[in-house]
Amino acid sequence: MKMIKNAIGREIPEKSDGRANIHFKGIGKYHPEGRKIGPPIPSGNDFANKVLRDLDDVLDKLNLFNGMTISFHHHLRNGDYLVNLVLEKFDQRRLKNIIIAPSALFPVHEPIVELIKKGTVSHVIGSMNGPVGRLCSTGGMNKTAILRSHGGRYRAIQDGDLKIDAAFIATPTADVHGNANGVQGPSACGPLGFALADSLYADQVIVVTDNLVPFPTWPWSIEGGNVDYVVLIDKLGDPEKIVSGTTKVTTDPDRLKIASMAARLVRDSGLIDEPEFSFQAGAGGMSLAFIQYVAEYMKDKKVFADFVRGGSTQVLVDMLESGLTKFILDGQSFDLAGIRSLRDNWNHIETNPFVSYNYHTKGCFAPRVKASVLGATEIDLNFNVNVNTHSDGWLLHGIGGFQDAADAYLTIITAPLYRKTNPIVVERVHTVTAPGETIDVLVTDHGIAVNPDREDLLDRLKDSDLPIVSIEELHQKAIDITGKPEPARNKDNVIALIEWRDGTVIDAVREIDLDKLNN
Amino acid sequence: MKMIKNAIGREIPEKSDGRANIHFKGIGKYHPEGRKIGPPIPSGNDFANKVLRDLDDVLDKLNLFNGMTISFHHHLRNGDYLVNLVLEKFDQRRLKNIIIAPSALFPVHEPIVELIKKGTVSHVIGSMNGPVGRLCSTGGMNKTAILRSHGGRYRAIQDGDLKIDAAFIATPTADVHGNANGVQGPSACGPLGFALADSLYADQVIVVTDNLVPFPTWPWSIEGGNVDYVVLIDKLGDPEKIVSGTTKVTTDPDRLKIASMAARLVRDSGLIDEPEFSFQAGAGGMSLAFIQYVAEYMKDKKVFADFVRGGSTQVLVDMLESGLTKFILDGQSFDLAGIRSLRDNWNHIETNPFVSYNYHTKGCFAPRVKASVLGATEIDLNFNVNVNTHSDGWLLHGIGGFQDAADAYLTIITAPLYRKTNPIVVERVHTVTAPGETIDVLVTDHGIAVNPDREDLLDRLKDSDLPIVSIEELHQKAIDITGKPEPARNKDNVIALIEWRDGTVIDAVREIDLDKLNN
Repeated sequence: MKMIKNAIGREIPEKSDGRANIHFKGIGKYHPEGRKIGPPIPSGNDFANKVLRDLDDVLDKLNLFNGMTISFHHHLRNGDYLVNLVLEKFDQRRLKNIIIAPSALFPVHEPIVELIKKGTVSHVIGSMNGPVGRLCSTGGMNKTAILRSHGGRYRAIQDGDLKIDAAFIATPTADVHGNANGVQGPSACGPLGFALADSLYADQVIVVTDNLVPFPTWPWSIEGGNVDYVVLIDKLGDPEKIVSGTTKVTTDPDRLKIASMAARLVRDSGLIDEPEFSFQAGAGGMSLAFIQYVAEYMKDKKVFADFVRGGSTQVLVDMLESGLTKFILDGQSFDLAGIRSLRDNWNHIETNPFVSYNYHTKGCFAPRVKASVLGATEIDLNFNVNVNTHSDGWLLHGIGGFQDAADAYLTIITAPLYRKTNPIVVERVHTVTAPGETIDVLVTDHGIAVNPDREDLLDRLKDSDLPIVSIEELHQKAIDITGKPEPARNKDNVIALIEWRDGTVIDAVREIDLDKLNN
Repeated sequence: MKMIKNAIGREIPEKSDGRANIHFKGIGKYHPEGRKIGPPIPSGNDFANKVLRDLDDVLDKLNLFNGMTISFHHHLRNGDYLVNLVLEKFDQRRLKNIIIAPSALFPVHEPIVELIKKGTVSHVIGSMNGPVGRLCSTGGMNKTAILRSHGGRYRAIQDGDLKIDAAFIATPTADVHGNANGVQGPSACGPLGFALADSLYADQVIVVTDNLVPFPTWPWSIEGGNVDYVVLIDKLGDPEKIVSGTTKVTTDPDRLKIASMAARLVRDSGLIDEPEFSFQAGAGGMSLAFIQYVAEYMKDKKVFADFVRGGSTQVLVDMLESGLTKFILDGQSFDLAGIRSLRDNWNHIETNPFVSYNYHTKGCFAPRVKASVLGATEIDLNFNVNVNTHSDGWLLHGIGGFQDAADAYLTIITAPLYRKTNPIVVERVHTVTAPGETIDVLVTDHGIAVNPDREDLLDRLKDSDLPIVSIEELHQKAIDITGKPEPARNKDNVIALIEWRDGTVIDAVREIDLDKLNN
């Protein structure tokens, strides 16, 4: 396999599965050519009645073939029934080498592993979480996996890099025309934005619901004009696992300390006082604590944000309802308060990766976010971040929105200095998910490092009493505690590519060497 | 010019301007092939700052060339300033042979006539209203005009039949990212749906506003991710002419009689009492009277509509607010009450021709409308309708949404039996805008004719005491009063094509013979 070094010195294969890889050239350096793809031109006459009463009926009508690519979204998270249901039907019909292109997978989707071993499924294009990642890491997929961010997946679909033959879209409410949303019905999950590209560009689009209503349902996150069939099934998923009843702010002192320092950093940077303030943080306990700290600072200063970016939760909804932000721009709801607010509050806006994250647009709003708080598996002396592989080399996580959210003016990584015996600040990350030039600050429980290329930020923070040190110091502290980490045990064989959001390849992931690992 | 007879016997040119015409084959008989087009793939990096302070700045940055196609929407109606402003700039820059593809033109756009004569503008693709239609009728355009319905225009753009090099989109409110809506700002006009296709498919998209706000404005009828530039100008238009203060119900006894009979027809058909009732009527005084009559019947019967289709007006808003309809599906607002309701009422939904009218979708909602009330210039013994040309042959009107709205379950034409000395019911319409198979009933002040092919309707109406007669009788009554009409004075030369909503050509319009006309 001929390898090329990309702009950050990572070796990537010249070709994968016969397709030439475009190597990462640096942020904003790669200019795409060509035109977005278009789906087949339909005729309205063929869609007078598109409601079907079970999955078999729809499979009878679809154009199914061996080697086809089918897609799913992950808004039902670990409560999703649909992926397994559909794949079971494909298996019963003895279809082979199906390619699955989900926006993400969860532990509930473990049956895919057996279907790959059996040959029903060829491989997965998308995030490699848990069991599927483990299979991929040991060379169990038939093709090189491609990992993309949420924005990168939309880009790949619209640009024609990822052609979807049939999209199965779980929708908690759909009308007989195929208009659908995620805020109503027993399986309500919030936004449906991760399925938007699939609905617009797939050759065949199937909406599956357990809450079929007359035309029109409103809002219509998915538009009936893009939908071939509407299928009613008993249950889309397990509501308890689709969304949590409530999300919980951390009570762990170390994590509270990190959250508090990240919030002080945002305050001390002066961003909070400036017009058009906005921020993004996740739904984890530490992120929620960060949001609460920032909200307190904002209250003190009597300022408000132009918008906050969800993953929505009770904590963000509180900010909206108390006037601390004009809008929530929501990509996925993580608790019931988030769903209720999205359903009922005009200023809680459903977004999708086209508007939020897709780099191949005339601008998405990711770079308009002033401060973005993200986690990491590893970060290195060049501020490169890894969220995909563990330091032992296993590929166990997708990119999620990481690369996209790192487009904020101030991208903050929050992480403990070490986890168990693993340092988080390392000399060189095992896998680069996002290059150092997109990462501005690392906040750990042992100090804060600012990317030295961000002189503007250092200037903003010059009067701050935060414990700002160099990343080298943090690295030294970490290995003083954990010792030098064991090198990962990999073969040369590339089993997955990490795509940057512009479609170039930023890193390659290699097969785990089980022999060495077991020694 | 070689001519072909299409499925309803109309002679159309085999080719126009080198392009082969597909002749109309009957409703649902033409099956499109191929894929929708895609716009160029952009890179977010190039759109960090897209706000410009005047039209010249944006024209300096655009790729402008002789013979290019530029587009506009008509939501600002006769109050629009933008079309003339932009064309004046093109003229100053000595650009030549510009093709204009508006969703419609109004009398305020008369300066286009001079620009065509001068060579700045080559021709207009779109509705041929008033002065521009007059020029077209006398052979003054450089190419054969193509008239499309609102749905047909969207179809043509998405299918690649109408390529737009630059779309200039007047938006009453826009944010710095290019998100835009029509419900806020001094030039508020209501929905912006007629510009949606342009924003999605044009090579260059320019949002022009007189109300620039920080990110994010909400709602975003136009999405910033599709927008190249945002331009702030002083005034988009004259608010008094963009929208009327109030729309007025007719008080003319003959028109009230027609409206009342149309409403009784809808009642007597039984549709009002059935589930999923819905209807569509325009904003003219007679249509408003029809709506009020239907609303009265609904109140009496204690039933409600699942939706009503706007053009929204005070009369429709009253229905929504009093619970007579669950939703208004609005394509354009005709008075201030319509705009206010669209802005403030969650159940007043902004629509666009993709969801409402486009035939090359997996279904639009036009066929879900139960009763649609439309006007006509002429209707003939085969129920063919003409809304484009006058009986003397002049091409003076666009198609608007006529062909699309005629997809309703019950399409009703309301018209007086004659206007001045012109019978409205004629032997053969001068131009076919919509074929008889889409037209179900004609309601005139002298009686009602039901299309004999609609046996189901005749059955529904068998107990009605409405004056139902044959269309032949209506025709005879008309010419008994007016006498036989003069034949139109046309040359053989085809100056315009009437496209059916599926992209096939349903009729051709010929040049006016001024010599004969003046004799």
